Amino acid sequence: MTVSRSLPTSHHAADLLAKVRARRPRVHCLMNTVVQKFTADGITVVGGIPSMTSSRDEIADFVAKADALTINLGTLDAERRAVIRIAVEIANAAAKPWIVDPVHCDYSRGRLEFARELIALGPTIVRGNAAEMALITDTRASLRIQTGPVDLLSDGQRAVSIQNGHGWMAQVTGTGCLSGGVIAAFMAVEKDALLAAASALAVTGCSAEMAAQEAKGPGSFEPAFLDALANITTENIRERARISHESC
Amino acid sequence: MTVSRSLPTSHHAADLLAKVRARRPRVHCLMNTVVQKFTADGITVVGGIPSMTSSRDEIADFVAKADALTINLGTLDAERRAVIRIAVEIANAAAKPWIVDPVHCDYSRGRLEFARELIALGPTIVRGNAAEMALITDTRASLRIQTGPVDLLSDGQRAVSIQNGHGWMAQVTGTGCLSGGVIAAFMAVEKDALLAAASALAVTGCSAEMAAQEAKGPGSFEPAFLDALANITTENIRERARISHESC
Amino acid sequence: MTVSRSLPTSHHAADLLAKVRARRPRVHCLMNTVVQKFTADGITVVGGIPSMTSSRDEIADFVAKADALTINLGTLDAERRAVIRIAVEIANAAAKPWIVDPVHCDYSRGRLEFARELIALGPTIVRGNAAEMALITDTRASLRIQTGPVDLLSDGQRAVSIQNGHGWMAQVTGTGCLSGGVIAAFMAVEKDALLAAASALAVTGCSAEMAAQEAKGPGSFEPAFLDALANITTENIRERARISHESC
Repeated sequence: MTVSRSLPTSHHAADLLAKVRARRPRVHCLMNTVVQKFTADGITVVGGIPSMTSSRDEIADFVAKADALTINLGTLDAERRAVIRIAVEIANAAAKPWIVDPVHCDYSRGRLEFARELIALGPTIVRGNAAEMALITDTRASLRIQTGPVDLLSDGQRAVSIQNGHGWMAQVTGTGCLSGGVIAAFMAVEKDALLAAASALAVTGCSAEMAAQEAKGPGSFEPAFLDALANITTENIRERARISHESC
Repeated sequence: MTVSRSLPTSHHAADLLAKVRARRPRVHCLMNTVVQKFTADGITVVGGIPSMTSSRDEIADFVAKADALTINLGTLDAERRAVIRIAVEIANAAAKPWIVDPVHCDYSRGRLEFARELIALGPTIVRGNAAEMALITDTRASLRIQTGPVDLLSDGQRAVSIQNGHGWMAQVTGTGCLSGGVIAAFMAVEKDALLAAASALAVTGCSAEMAAQEAKGPGSFEPAFLDALANITTENIRERARISHESC
Repeated sequence: MTVSRSLPTSHHAADLLAKVRARRPRVHCLMNTVVQKFTADGITVVGGIPSMTSSRDEIADFVAKADALTINLGTLDAERRAVIRIAVEIANAAAKPWIVDPVHCDYSRGRLEFARELIALGPTIVRGNAAEMALITDTRASLRIQTGPVDLLSDGQRAVSIQNGHGWMAQVTGTGCLSGGVIAAFMAVEKDALLAAASALAVTGCSAEMAAQEAKGPGSFEPAFLDALANITTENIRERARISHESC
């Protein structure tokens, strides 16, 4: 059955950001150790409440409290795989949205196999760069996102591109991981994954553009980006968001 | 036997900060991976020397070299619990001051049980937010601190409140962990835990206020906060510190 | 057989930086969790591509893809030792350059023993501060570097000192680890380890001086340092680099 669904606009982006700021969703992150603080800061300044444990003894309690989940495949070992499987099982049983980022699955066969295992469990969203997504062909994810200078989103019925952002994002380790956390926060307040993700990516990309105007390089861009995520207004989003509808 | 003791003032805060800067105490941190660098930077700029290992093979050597210890319960697993127990045993045997932060013990039963186990071992200080401290009722800590917009300190004989700080502290992951490290540095130069902790919290809170004047949001607040901790003067502390004595 | 070799100048530093920016070498980092992001950001802004996993299941794939390796002994445990041994074996078999930083080997006997084991395996470079290097007497490294206010480099035939940098580097956790990553990136484009390391340390030190002019303290120094590493020009290097040739 094909259901008629909305196509995302800057209005959705501003509206969902306001909801995140008002409702303060809890986002649990299974995140490599490199970018944990940056991701937690990004979720916090956009309005959510992050948590980060990847301990097997604690994961069930934390996922049970969370409204959405973001999973990043950095620094995988057997323990971490086991913890991620527990987290996904709980999220699926409680119908909580989750996004998986198969980061560097093009570097390591083991990581690719685990990425495919996870994606077969039905994430709400799978998101990667072009090299990663080329390897993720058979997916049960509701929504596929390929990020890059232009972000491409597709749920089979609708296709959308987002042309926001700045080149310095690629020079700051973890901006992709952070945006995965922001997408999770938006999914917690909007069931339509395409609306949620397009809005989150537009807000993130517009914030990056605002930050670049304040910064002198990729170092000062990082705090400026967090400032912009905290301070971005409905007007900023309306002026800057470049969300286009593509044919599927 | 009740001993007459000083009540903390801005004079103590400035005096102890000068001692930390002169003596450069070593602070060993058992800290979750999220906030390790921020905490290490905070301890360094205030004048201390941080170390961070949580490896079972190394913990004894590092705690033996340290002048004080800060323990944060993030990302607990069996290995980490074992390491923390070793660290506490060495600290207690050598009468080194230690502070425990039962972070998110209200999220997970396992974390709460471990927090209670630790607190029964007689930390110098237990410090948490209102939700956490409500669960920490039976404590052998010399000093209890409840942090929030107003910090409340009590050692049974004396009660003190600190009204410094800024709302952006809550938007930067790890400011609480960092202030636990700063408290440990102050305990290394002052045996009276209430004087040490009240001074450390006043210095931290005044620095946050100074940083907020320089910053445009929570992102730029973070480096400005480290700048202020490094640059704060006796005069800044005298002008800003709001330390009040409460009835017990 | 003694081979006549070049002595490094600011010309080499500028030339090798241009090569790093053009060729974008991959640097795999076995790095303690405290400084992973800062090191990754430093490698990225200077022109390289960092990776960070220390999982036993993944290390072989990542080292095989890398052009150079940096190994930091923070937070050592049995698993981490095993992973480092695998990484070194692969690097040696493929003649990839690697640098080892025996950080805090003066704190822990176990760490010192492991540092000595690694250094017997023939790293391209061993680099530490004065206290650490005093314990590393018998080395098969091609190049020894003692870092401090003045950096001293010696490969047995040539000795060089670098007098660049700023005191705030010592107040930002991880600047040494970051510079180890930058040295690895330079080794990936220049086989002569002394030329590579002297150039990398000159670029890093000049960038720190430029950053200090922009910053108000060690907090704002950190993003300014990354900006400077990204923006530093050939002219900046020629004006600032202080590379001296010493008698062996």
